[in-house]
Amino acid sequence: MRNVRLDICYDGTRYRGWQRLSTTDNTIQQKIETALSRILEEPIELTGSGRTDAGTHAAGQVANFHCSSQMPCEEILSQLRRYLPEDIGIYSCRNVSERFHARLNAKTKTYRYRLWNSESPCVFDRKYVYTDPRGLEIDKMREAAQLFLGQHDFSAFCANKNMKKSTVRYIHSLNVERAGNEIVFTVTGNGFLHHMVRILVGTLLEVGRGERAIESIPELFGAQRAQAGELLPSCGLCLMEVTY
Amino acid sequence: MRNVRLDICYDGTRYRGWQRLSTTDNTIQQKIETALSRILEEPIELTGSGRTDAGTHAAGQVANFHCSSQMPCEEILSQLRRYLPEDIGIYSCRNVSERFHARLNAKTKTYRYRLWNSESPCVFDRKYVYTDPRGLEIDKMREAAQLFLGQHDFSAFCANKNMKKSTVRYIHSLNVERAGNEIVFTVTGNGFLHHMVRILVGTLLEVGRGERAIESIPELFGAQRAQAGELLPSCGLCLMEVTY
Repeated sequence: MRNVRLDICYDGTRYRGWQRLSTTDNTIQQKIETALSRILEEPIELTGSGRTDAGTHAAGQVANFHCSSQMPCEEILSQLRRYLPEDIGIYSCRNVSERFHARLNAKTKTYRYRLWNSESPCVFDRKYVYTDPRGLEIDKMREAAQLFLGQHDFSAFCANKNMKKSTVRYIHSLNVERAGNEIVFTVTGNGFLHHMVRILVGTLLEVGRGERAIESIPELFGAQRAQAGELLPSCGLCLMEVTY
Repeated sequence: MRNVRLDICYDGTRYRGWQRLSTTDNTIQQKIETALSRILEEPIELTGSGRTDAGTHAAGQVANFHCSSQMPCEEILSQLRRYLPEDIGIYSCRNVSERFHARLNAKTKTYRYRLWNSESPCVFDRKYVYTDPRGLEIDKMREAAQLFLGQHDFSAFCANKNMKKSTVRYIHSLNVERAGNEIVFTVTGNGFLHHMVRILVGTLLEVGRGERAIESIPELFGAQRAQAGELLPSCGLCLMEVTY
């Protein structure tokens, strides 16, 4: 059966996240599935690379779907752009091999967390940053970030307390950069647990404020949720890229 | 009497422009005046560097007001930030000489017009760009832009047909840059007529599409409105800086 890949970006502000829910139709997956089902005149089920939380954004979400329609990709793309609201954008639509699976084949994911670290207001990008003006020592956060690299048990960074599956993940890189009033955290890993990035950055902020010792970071691996830092708001988070 | 200067940025999307109107209270000037009058407990009238149209943004609007209150500037700033909606930001508040007048003392103004020149959607900055995917020759627009430099009669670039005052203005610079899918027009001058930047960029786009000859630009100076190009939408426009 024909297999089609979509590359998607969205401003997640007004959505209940990526994943289809039975209680609302206000999720990004449902908006795209509904549009595709109308355009292709057959029921379409999308497989995303993974969920994003309510309010989280994506610049590089990837999804795939199977269909029997032979409508050319350019036509699907152009019709999708007409149907979808302006806060969901499809930037590519292409046929892929029947074996491609957006979730199971994902090799790495990159997330960015934007912190607006100033009393001065962030007017234009206000929906894409989390504002916290408290002073932060960047060097300390950078040093702590290095300790997360490699393979660790991120149980303390997982919102799901009764997680049955493995909480071990591999972090390839975790960069902390200041850009004007903003501090940008960019993390690439082989996968992320529920809320993992937002708790991880929350933990780094505690280090940056001097509330948590750098040396205590390794003790968090395999620990309980309560031992890691605060869960930061979803608005600062954006899924940047998925590689296959 | 005490004279206070505010440096202001705003996302103009949901406002009817800068200037106070008797028919609505949904203007930026009114929002700030109302907040200031409450904070200082005296009626405040703001003088802006100039109007911006409904839907136009500002990263560097300047205004001043007189008051008898002796509340410190830091306190005014902090209270203003608490009162104002998140799409209006005050980034500085300071006492200035009694003679400072935000409009009359303005020496230059810089505007930026952002064109999203792609079929691919602009999701995150969608409220700050005007989208037109038609092909454009940047070099032609750059060449035409040079012809606007210096002092000219911009009568053809003024929305006000019965303009009684001079329509002569001086343009210091007019740059056209491509940045990815975006084309950014940045213009600095000693002042701008109503709709002038939006008509000027609209005229350059006609040159870029090959619909208007570069050589015909000088004929527009002192001409009628109908001879210049199309008025572009206000959403792509942003007042970047006012110098004194």
